[in-house]
Amino acid sequence: MTENSPKIRLFLDAALSVGQMVELTPAQTHYLGGVMRRAAGHEVAVFNGRDGEWRAVIEVMEKKRARLRILEQTAPQLGPPDLWLMFAPIKKARTDFIVEKATELGCARIQPVLTRFTNAERVRVDRLQAHAVEAAEQCGGTFVPEVAEPVRLDRLLGDWPADRRLMFCDEARTALPVAEALAGAGGGPWAILVGPEGGFASDEAARLRAIPGVVPVTLGPRILRADTAAAAAITAWQMQLGDWT
Amino acid sequence: MTENSPKIRLFLDAALSVGQMVELTPAQTHYLGGVMRRAAGHEVAVFNGRDGEWRAVIEVMEKKRARLRILEQTAPQLGPPDLWLMFAPIKKARTDFIVEKATELGCARIQPVLTRFTNAERVRVDRLQAHAVEAAEQCGGTFVPEVAEPVRLDRLLGDWPADRRLMFCDEARTALPVAEALAGAGGGPWAILVGPEGGFASDEAARLRAIPGVVPVTLGPRILRADTAAAAAITAWQMQLGDWT
Repeated sequence: MTENSPKIRLFLDAALSVGQMVELTPAQTHYLGGVMRRAAGHEVAVFNGRDGEWRAVIEVMEKKRARLRILEQTAPQLGPPDLWLMFAPIKKARTDFIVEKATELGCARIQPVLTRFTNAERVRVDRLQAHAVEAAEQCGGTFVPEVAEPVRLDRLLGDWPADRRLMFCDEARTALPVAEALAGAGGGPWAILVGPEGGFASDEAARLRAIPGVVPVTLGPRILRADTAAAAAITAWQMQLGDWT
Repeated sequence: MTENSPKIRLFLDAALSVGQMVELTPAQTHYLGGVMRRAAGHEVAVFNGRDGEWRAVIEVMEKKRARLRILEQTAPQLGPPDLWLMFAPIKKARTDFIVEKATELGCARIQPVLTRFTNAERVRVDRLQAHAVEAAEQCGGTFVPEVAEPVRLDRLLGDWPADRRLMFCDEARTALPVAEALAGAGGGPWAILVGPEGGFASDEAARLRAIPGVVPVTLGPRILRADTAAAAAITAWQMQLGDWT
């Protein structure tokens, strides 16, 4: 591989320390050897979501198995802000997109939420989690957001943690513009809620507005698709309260 | 159609005034009659990018042709801010996505740019323009951004208008955080430039930084894909300088 080969980053579900040996999964073995044409002796970057980024060298590269030896830590662990993205699942490609964008832009947890007007195909959490891993490998982050099992909105709100603020993207556009709404707000645990394409039912919206610590926001004068709203809302939050400052 | 039928909005390339008759295109005829099952007597909303939004009634709905009669204006024309989005085309689905997001978030012009490291399939401007129309119909805007023919970066910069400021999304991450970089900036004509997946060549980046009125910005601590960067950059600009305030 030349100096200009793209850097490969792999997420490993394993402890990382100097000299540690790690077996790759079949999918990783195929990607590294079959797709990226790496061989024994080549180096890759690895992370596990807890221990920062490390250099590793390929010790064994066979058709069906591969093993890395961990060399040294190259970057410290950098967690995301304590931000949850909560959204009503939509079509498959757009849901995948939301998970990818939430990972790159920086969330700790991705929570699918079933609202009255949610009209989604079945949510495959394992597939979404794999998307989050891939996005984390790509964007240089050392964390992978947890993709949670879908929950119903009423259960989520019934159980809402008292110390977590809630940025509610209100498509009714009666709330303050997002920059103004977040201007006075402080840090700490937050969540963003983006509604379904059909909007929230009126009792859902009323219940949301009654949550202590809720901050309703308006994301501009046009109607954003749910995936656009998710990306815009995370950007706005990160710029004012998160790790983009 | 019931009260709850989703509102249909059509972009018409025609003058709009009370009593005006407008023939639909074959694609619009198919969509309205075949897909959405609308018939003579049903109403739709229409806009042409210049005259705001209007109510119209279907006068004729046949298999191959349809005609609307324009009834009355229902919303004023609301143009986008004078913001250009310039980006190096990437894979088809992600380029489509950028055009959709730029339309919803609000740009006046979408300019594909060919950089040294641009590695794109051929750009079909007519197809991208059709995507912008569809996104405008969906998001409730009364304008459609113009999708321009691709130009080479050196030609674009050689011809750069003196009064247009340039927000340069610098993936080298040496620039100020975006909120800080834009904080002192004023309104007027602006452009956002998002680089290709391979980054800018060093002479391209140097030339960009030398443009009078350039504002280099950093979009957070992670490496964003070009489509993510485009959506985040437009959001940041709109929040601080555009029509989201």
